[in-house]
Amino acid sequence: MSMEITDGPMGKMLRPAWMEEYAGIPAEAFHEQFPSLYIRGARVLSWKGEKMLVQEDGVVVVRKGRIVYAGAKKQAPAKNPADVTVDAEGRLVTPGLIDPHTHLMFAGDRSREFAMRLEGASYEDILKAGGGINSTVSATRQAPEDDLIALARERLDEEMMRGVTTVEAKTGYFLDLEGELKALKLYSELSLLHPLRIAPTLLSAHVTPAEFKDRPDDYLRLITEEIIPQAARVREQRTGSPAENAPWHIHTLFGDPMPHWAVDVFCERSAFSVEQARQVLEAAKRHGFAVKLHAGQFSAMGAADLGARMGALSVDHMEYYTDEELDSIARAGTTVVFLPGAAYSLRMNPPHMDDFRRRGIPVALATDMNPGTSMTTHLPLMMSMGTQLCGMTVEEAWRAVTLNAARALGMADKLGNLAPGAVGDLVIWHFTDPSEIPWRMGEGYPWLVVREGIVVWEN
Amino acid sequence: MSMEITDGPMGKMLRPAWMEEYAGIPAEAFHEQFPSLYIRGARVLSWKGEKMLVQEDGVVVVRKGRIVYAGAKKQAPAKNPADVTVDAEGRLVTPGLIDPHTHLMFAGDRSREFAMRLEGASYEDILKAGGGINSTVSATRQAPEDDLIALARERLDEEMMRGVTTVEAKTGYFLDLEGELKALKLYSELSLLHPLRIAPTLLSAHVTPAEFKDRPDDYLRLITEEIIPQAARVREQRTGSPAENAPWHIHTLFGDPMPHWAVDVFCERSAFSVEQARQVLEAAKRHGFAVKLHAGQFSAMGAADLGARMGALSVDHMEYYTDEELDSIARAGTTVVFLPGAAYSLRMNPPHMDDFRRRGIPVALATDMNPGTSMTTHLPLMMSMGTQLCGMTVEEAWRAVTLNAARALGMADKLGNLAPGAVGDLVIWHFTDPSEIPWRMGEGYPWLVVREGIVVWEN
Repeated sequence: MSMEITDGPMGKMLRPAWMEEYAGIPAEAFHEQFPSLYIRGARVLSWKGEKMLVQEDGVVVVRKGRIVYAGAKKQAPAKNPADVTVDAEGRLVTPGLIDPHTHLMFAGDRSREFAMRLEGASYEDILKAGGGINSTVSATRQAPEDDLIALARERLDEEMMRGVTTVEAKTGYFLDLEGELKALKLYSELSLLHPLRIAPTLLSAHVTPAEFKDRPDDYLRLITEEIIPQAARVREQRTGSPAENAPWHIHTLFGDPMPHWAVDVFCERSAFSVEQARQVLEAAKRHGFAVKLHAGQFSAMGAADLGARMGALSVDHMEYYTDEELDSIARAGTTVVFLPGAAYSLRMNPPHMDDFRRRGIPVALATDMNPGTSMTTHLPLMMSMGTQLCGMTVEEAWRAVTLNAARALGMADKLGNLAPGAVGDLVIWHFTDPSEIPWRMGEGYPWLVVREGIVVWEN
Repeated sequence: MSMEITDGPMGKMLRPAWMEEYAGIPAEAFHEQFPSLYIRGARVLSWKGEKMLVQEDGVVVVRKGRIVYAGAKKQAPAKNPADVTVDAEGRLVTPGLIDPHTHLMFAGDRSREFAMRLEGASYEDILKAGGGINSTVSATRQAPEDDLIALARERLDEEMMRGVTTVEAKTGYFLDLEGELKALKLYSELSLLHPLRIAPTLLSAHVTPAEFKDRPDDYLRLITEEIIPQAARVREQRTGSPAENAPWHIHTLFGDPMPHWAVDVFCERSAFSVEQARQVLEAAKRHGFAVKLHAGQFSAMGAADLGARMGALSVDHMEYYTDEELDSIARAGTTVVFLPGAAYSLRMNPPHMDDFRRRGIPVALATDMNPGTSMTTHLPLMMSMGTQLCGMTVEEAWRAVTLNAARALGMADKLGNLAPGAVGDLVIWHFTDPSEIPWRMGEGYPWLVVREGIVVWEN
């Protein structure tokens, strides 16, 4: 199988041939053509229910893009002569990491605001001073499509070289009909250009744009009556059947929309109220989207409770919450996504694991990659912050970027585990012990990053 | 000039020819043979007194290992035809970073303790449970010299690829006469094997080793009456005149002992008292060493005050302090080294800049690289923690790893600034703005790392 090899700053990207060669192949024949991968000598990290298992001297076999075996050597299937064989030599093999909350595509530079914050300005101060998100919206609207693609690709490269195989990517820096739809289309194009899997989320309800400042209800109506219905049509085009330049099998995951396209709302005093969020999410559900919420970043307004009631895939942030909200999330089984990079940047206390662990709430970790409050693509560093700042154990930190991150995308049956039937996304690391990444403050690099059984990054 | 080029995980190490070829050259002819370096198109970060200057479209010229010019293009000297010329194309050029507090050389693996801490055990609990530093002492004493060198080289590589040109390196994991002297000699050997400059510090007063548990005064006498006097002889051999396999000009910096060899004491309830520390440091001064202290990591015992009274180059940690101690340090002009990685790992509050800034105390940042409480070589990440966890501004974070880190080594007249007469250690970064490193949570990579005018790392 042909590869385009690109030298990156920290390794080699191996761009798989499916990017072009497989574009015309019917979906049902797509994965048939993938080479099989047979990994031996691995320390295999997987999930049995909620419990982490680390199998010594293990074997992982991926065929037709799916894992057919992950476990002890003695029960492993026989190696086929055609299998691509990798001797992990005792290295740790884990599911590919999943970054379930990023604002991937934007233009502009807000480093000056960072300096302002270091001198004491709050996020809301900066918003009021006309800076903040509006400056990113201007820069993003003005940027040529090629620039937006190039910026996003660079960030995807950084994610991949740290072991990430799936990235959730939000819109929300255009905040107009044409731009928000363009962002979805560009994410779809990126899926053809880059080996990482992208889960698109429509976040038109990020903040009310300046031109709607005096008539926020009109912007809300634009979202619910125009942007969401038309975004649903974009989704159908990309995931419903083969479309020009957008083969169906790239945008689905073994037949399912890949991963759930979602709609998200930033529910906060400076953005959208709980009632406004409810209207947006109801429109989203009417049009077949999964729903998510930015909840409790600066205040406990009840957004988490709304998420629980509406069956949200995840409620994200949760620096502020009430006991009642947590009880409500726990009953609904909603996943919470911690974003410690944003709390760290804003010098706030991130949520602490104790309250969530006690209630059995699944917790994921994400970078929150965004130009204002978390300018990082470093998911392993978030695992370190998860342990040191949020009180997670090593096991919880790994669960947070694999199994629970898959839950936050509604794909825990397919992603985030090394188990028969799951998608063959995995990482062979340069180290042997799961504690390496949090212990070394985010260090610990992949040797091989694998998507659907195909090596896409080598270092 | 010949180079040995090694592909590293994140770039190329260019091992300068001085390592072997210049070994036999008399000191006075040594730097004469170095190529001159002429950098143009640079954004030049330098210090004018305590103030940070960033010169647009600047020029930096290094001749015979020293900076002869750093500033605006129009006052720059003419380029000589033989100069190695680099167009920085607008990139930031800064002094080489200095990591002024590391425990560089040790063997063994303490990741299990990390997991214990995540479940609530304190550093002192782990010490009491027979784990902690004693397990590192056992592993280090048993390790072959080649292994110790290999482990330390790996850590030096990681430092260099992040823009560090000088690393302070402590002994303190042998804790016996033979081993502590061996550690000093191995650091001296490493200076010939690796392009980074190493500033050795004797930390035999790290903790009382197990075999002296019931007679700590005997260990104290071993330090003051045997280890320190013999360490002084090692220092004289290496810095006083050319010695076999240890050319004098590698171990000095333009004639001065390179940087000051120092003696350090871990002054803490679980280690050495203020009175014991005083005895060690007085012996150190009698034998010509600079002195330093681990002060206030777990309690304000008066160690910082002792440091101020004894003219310590630096007092390091300072999570706990009294107003009186800070006043005393401020009067003495002692530099404080913040070690936020250790505080972060131990989930403690690191010291906050406000109290130090108000008194005009110079503050440096270091990794505290060590196997128990700060398993990191990532000095740029410490700049991020300096801003986010310790309340530094961007300017303070840069001062902390250049000018003030040089002060912590007693070398502020030679290292840590781009000014005529200073040593030609510098970094050309892949970015343009000083805020990049703290803003991006420790990201931001060097393009070229330069020691004494010679490129030693390229990425």
